[in-house]
Amino acid sequence: MPNPIIILVRPQMGENIGAAARVMANFGLSELRLVAPRDGWPNFQAQAVAAHATHIIDAAKIYATTEEAVADLELVYATCCRMRDMEKPILTPRELMPQLNPYVRTGILFGPERTGLENPDMTRAAAHIFIPVNPEYQSLNLAQAVAVVGYEWFTTPSPLIPLPEGEGQSEAKGEGLATQEEVEGMLKHLETIMDAANFYQVPHKKPKMDQNIRNIFTRARLKSQEVNSLRGIFRAMGTKKD
Amino acid sequence: MPNPIIILVRPQMGENIGAAARVMANFGLSELRLVAPRDGWPNFQAQAVAAHATHIIDAAKIYATTEEAVADLELVYATCCRMRDMEKPILTPRELMPQLNPYVRTGILFGPERTGLENPDMTRAAAHIFIPVNPEYQSLNLAQAVAVVGYEWFTTPSPLIPLPEGEGQSEAKGEGLATQEEVEGMLKHLETIMDAANFYQVPHKKPKMDQNIRNIFTRARLKSQEVNSLRGIFRAMGTKKD
Repeated sequence: MPNPIIILVRPQMGENIGAAARVMANFGLSELRLVAPRDGWPNFQAQAVAAHATHIIDAAKIYATTEEAVADLELVYATCCRMRDMEKPILTPRELMPQLNPYVRTGILFGPERTGLENPDMTRAAAHIFIPVNPEYQSLNLAQAVAVVGYEWFTTPSPLIPLPEGEGQSEAKGEGLATQEEVEGMLKHLETIMDAANFYQVPHKKPKMDQNIRNIFTRARLKSQEVNSLRGIFRAMGTKKD
Repeated sequence: MPNPIIILVRPQMGENIGAAARVMANFGLSELRLVAPRDGWPNFQAQAVAAHATHIIDAAKIYATTEEAVADLELVYATCCRMRDMEKPILTPRELMPQLNPYVRTGILFGPERTGLENPDMTRAAAHIFIPVNPEYQSLNLAQAVAVVGYEWFTTPSPLIPLPEGEGQSEAKGEGLATQEEVEGMLKHLETIMDAANFYQVPHKKPKMDQNIRNIFTRARLKSQEVNSLRGIFRAMGTKKD
């Protein structure tokens, strides 16, 4: 049964990567991706701390950017420990896990130790995951955050998804979902058209406007077919001149 | 509101003590006790890893033995990750937390990194706590075990214990429970009497027999008054000669 992919974005300390790998093994998770680990790769400290979970470290895939790390995934969630000014559902790990569909390629983003995830990474997520912590002491260690998410995943009974015969089947399996690469391509397409249409009249407002638009489409869990329809609409709009 | 006391028994690595303190702070736990930490105390590594949770490290109490560390407590639980041949209830953290009574002084034991708790420590517990893990990779890091227990404590709504007027009140508050010191005194009393009565006919079976008897009384959650009654019975039995 496929399990969610743990994606550590710009992790700083090898010890934390190793500890995350170890606790992934404790809770039956196996696929680790790293975006631009600060101290390069391979990392001796990560190996040492992973103890007997070195198979997870050895199989970890390395990416230069979050965009590349999520390109083949159908759903992305992002952990956060402070509130963002974003229109995005916020779920606790316990609320999220029963919703995960084992037929959908799913990744969970964790940010760098010091700062957590940046907004451009957060916008890629269908929803944010908030781990409940003491408001007076919110700084949860990276591997401990992976532990809580892994623990909840492991202790949540896998949803039994009935697979009807025929037409409904691909729907139930979630096969129709677009990959992040398709969604990203569509968003870039849209931004180009908006730019050409002089939509961004106040240049310094562009990043925030882009973020708001991205949040709409990433939380919508688009199907491939919908992405194609949207691109068709954008194309039509893009060629229309006053 | 009092919260359960985290007791690390013979912890080996300062890093793990520090990481445990930090995650205690994340989940609103504040009282840490250490039984014979391997590298002595204070421990620089523990301080360094605890980050901003040094108040927990600074306030940690040090004991030479588990017996001393639990003497003033009314209920003790012990975490374990392998099955013991013991007559003791086994609960997951999620099952345990709703049962904790904030009016009862409660401690949770965690064993050394390599071996976990020894049987003599396990027998002190009213129940064992089993953290669900992947059976193929059970070795959970000490601080991660504290994390899961703390997370479950923090996310479990505190039971609202109605405090009736008058007679029932001390019962509801759990005030009647014996301390571990009282229970231990009674058990030693019983063992002396059994010894004098030649109960241990096969000497090498004594440790296992003592363990079985201790498990009966530790899981019984005795009241002070019951301990006194039992000691009266033992005294009467002890003086009766054939």
